[in-house]
Amino acid sequence: MERNLYHVLGAKQFGREDLDRLFAEAREMEKVVAAGGDRRFTGKIMTTLFFEASTRTRLSFESAMNRLGGSVIGTENAAQFSSAIKGETLEDTIKIITGYSDVIVMRHTDIGAAKRAAKVSGVPVINAGDGAGEHPTQALLDAYTIGKELGQIDGVKIAMVGDLAYGRTVHSLSYILANYKDVMIYYISPENVQIPASVKRYMDEKGIRFAETTDLDSVAGDVDVVYQTRIQKERFPSIEEYEKASGQYIVDRELLDRMRKNSIVLHPLPRAGEIAEEVDADPRAAYFRQAQNGLFIRMALIDKCLGK
Amino acid sequence: MERNLYHVLGAKQFGREDLDRLFAEAREMEKVVAAGGDRRFTGKIMTTLFFEASTRTRLSFESAMNRLGGSVIGTENAAQFSSAIKGETLEDTIKIITGYSDVIVMRHTDIGAAKRAAKVSGVPVINAGDGAGEHPTQALLDAYTIGKELGQIDGVKIAMVGDLAYGRTVHSLSYILANYKDVMIYYISPENVQIPASVKRYMDEKGIRFAETTDLDSVAGDVDVVYQTRIQKERFPSIEEYEKASGQYIVDRELLDRMRKNSIVLHPLPRAGEIAEEVDADPRAAYFRQAQNGLFIRMALIDKCLGK
Amino acid sequence: MERNLYHVLGAKQFGREDLDRLFAEAREMEKVVAAGGDRRFTGKIMTTLFFEASTRTRLSFESAMNRLGGSVIGTENAAQFSSAIKGETLEDTIKIITGYSDVIVMRHTDIGAAKRAAKVSGVPVINAGDGAGEHPTQALLDAYTIGKELGQIDGVKIAMVGDLAYGRTVHSLSYILANYKDVMIYYISPENVQIPASVKRYMDEKGIRFAETTDLDSVAGDVDVVYQTRIQKERFPSIEEYEKASGQYIVDRELLDRMRKNSIVLHPLPRAGEIAEEVDADPRAAYFRQAQNGLFIRMALIDKCLGK
Repeated sequence: MERNLYHVLGAKQFGREDLDRLFAEAREMEKVVAAGGDRRFTGKIMTTLFFEASTRTRLSFESAMNRLGGSVIGTENAAQFSSAIKGETLEDTIKIITGYSDVIVMRHTDIGAAKRAAKVSGVPVINAGDGAGEHPTQALLDAYTIGKELGQIDGVKIAMVGDLAYGRTVHSLSYILANYKDVMIYYISPENVQIPASVKRYMDEKGIRFAETTDLDSVAGDVDVVYQTRIQKERFPSIEEYEKASGQYIVDRELLDRMRKNSIVLHPLPRAGEIAEEVDADPRAAYFRQAQNGLFIRMALIDKCLGK
Repeated sequence: MERNLYHVLGAKQFGREDLDRLFAEAREMEKVVAAGGDRRFTGKIMTTLFFEASTRTRLSFESAMNRLGGSVIGTENAAQFSSAIKGETLEDTIKIITGYSDVIVMRHTDIGAAKRAAKVSGVPVINAGDGAGEHPTQALLDAYTIGKELGQIDGVKIAMVGDLAYGRTVHSLSYILANYKDVMIYYISPENVQIPASVKRYMDEKGIRFAETTDLDSVAGDVDVVYQTRIQKERFPSIEEYEKASGQYIVDRELLDRMRKNSIVLHPLPRAGEIAEEVDADPRAAYFRQAQNGLFIRMALIDKCLGK
Repeated sequence: MERNLYHVLGAKQFGREDLDRLFAEAREMEKVVAAGGDRRFTGKIMTTLFFEASTRTRLSFESAMNRLGGSVIGTENAAQFSSAIKGETLEDTIKIITGYSDVIVMRHTDIGAAKRAAKVSGVPVINAGDGAGEHPTQALLDAYTIGKELGQIDGVKIAMVGDLAYGRTVHSLSYILANYKDVMIYYISPENVQIPASVKRYMDEKGIRFAETTDLDSVAGDVDVVYQTRIQKERFPSIEEYEKASGQYIVDRELLDRMRKNSIVLHPLPRAGEIAEEVDADPRAAYFRQAQNGLFIRMALIDKCLGK
């Protein structure tokens, strides 16, 4: 409908300058939050349209909107979404919701759903995850955290660990990192859930160095960032193979001892055993700070969507 | 409890003057929204008490309250309503909720539930649908749309199409239209889901002309409004009979060609095939504008409930 | 994390002076509500984190926050809590939520959950019920109601009736009442769900007089307060024994006739037959006023958590 709307649909839409500006804005938002928030979006309404539950992501967006003075309406569960049950298309739903709000934050089970929504929406759409597709705001907060923790993103050496085939956050983060200089990515996964060819092709096109391996231990000492993710049982032919695979990639005291002094451990959370709790007390455990950064990034994105 | 509260319970409570005033107020609300909303109800609280999910209706009310500066608390799902599970009566629930809010918007599965709620409530109650009973705010936004699209409601010729036995919106709309002059209603439905005798009796009492038929095609060229609704599978003895019936009433390019140049197509939405997507691009497709009008009507009703 | 945070975790944390101050503050909040609320917490965010549905308690907290100008984000259902499903610990969840809000109101199924949350939270935690553990805000509003209805709490004679073994509200209320002078408690229950030894021990330590009996009728005329609660079917070996037990403790016209003129009937609600509806019209039926008092107490507690 409307032209010139700013949507957040996928990681590839962000160039280096966009990222520089966004991260500068996020730093401003840290000050806004420290000062108790402001009221710049009083009277504006965000709709959080979650066709799939994702409580932390939803609350993060809702908090971001509230910190800027706006209001939130929404639905927290797809299964209950009454119109969807009655067979309404996503497009029809969006055409209606668009009349009730100033920005739509959407989580969906289908790849490409956010793009379809943006096509018919009269207000900006922010993709909060579309199935096995993308989760761009997660990737943006990941990159923001790397820059904040390490001082810069250029030159970063990062190990992405876990289920790299289905884990959409590592795909989106790879696309974001492709904007930076001298990046080196180690893709570390069991053989049945390796990073997809499409991601590798993109990295090649952008001239980003990467390596694939199944061995985290040998790489741990070389990287600035260990980006840990979950491995899901249902990807493996048997429990035994799953346990063998997942046990190999646990970040614990022992792995920390191999890691550099100024490196960090990241995780999109929630975790379920793949980072031992003993790691939490180490200053390199940056995953809770990373979650907090999600607030600042989302505030900056909302500002970009709603601001003049 | 309180006397002199203004409740919105059913379509029959609205006389011609009420409607004229309400629609004038809704037109004012269009300007309020265009100006970015106002803060007239800062500090006021709406409770949306949905014992049955109806996401669009709920979001429409919540948006309306937010656009006027108020706050919303609520519950989006009956099945989870903890007190109901524990056997609490609706009356007890309302007596408690009444202390938490300034207006209650209620959706329930039982006919008459809104009236029961109003009897014990200390704050205004708005009926957002009570089972097979009424859905007055839908009927009001339907009538408002007719007036806005056609210039006036007096003299309208309207075809109501689909499941007229169980579709509560056509009943409520009939009651609203009974306030206008020279109205002609065509009730068009399969024979097993015809308009109830009680509705016809009411139309007779009010001197409203109507006709019943099973044939949409022959009427399409005579009306200003085709008001399409869903036909539900479960009303029919077999899938074959359902498909035969529902297939007869699809609004598509072909039907549009029979319709007048200045007529409109309405639908309470969600739709599930009974209006073909090819119709959307036609200027006579007014159903998304109709959904948008729900916001203005609900703002006007909230103002009536909370204003001085 | 943060030191010096004020959490509301259990009834035992409240001494007499705390209660006097809190109840004075709640009386002030009655005036605030009568004046239409105020905006003292504009920009502050409450997260309602309900791992178990409790609609009335949640709405009461959300209304309290809104009446003071604050915003609310939250989740109304544990079963959907996506991170919990994925195996996240409560501690991880709280560490993340803490970055999104200024106060957390939490309902959980496990005893001690609120304490665990407070240990890792960077913002105040209010326990809105933790399984068979405590429900301190209910006990506080109960005590506040007694003081308001009777003029004072010192010297009160109260009958607590029903399932005293699993009913956490009677435990929490007992702990609160232990701060007052000349209190006399009658614990009245079927033999299989008597008040636990741990509660009796605490009452003994505090020098509070109490008696246990199975007979409500003989005590009804001696008390200022009949505090009725539900008896749950599943606690009894057979339906027959349940019906025999529960039938014995119904507050009806007949019981009212035995009660003193200035006594009151309380109930944490929802009720399911254990107070007959014929009782509602009697001025001694204070349970709906009690529910309303929950708003004022929760406003006072929020103020204590967020105020300077």
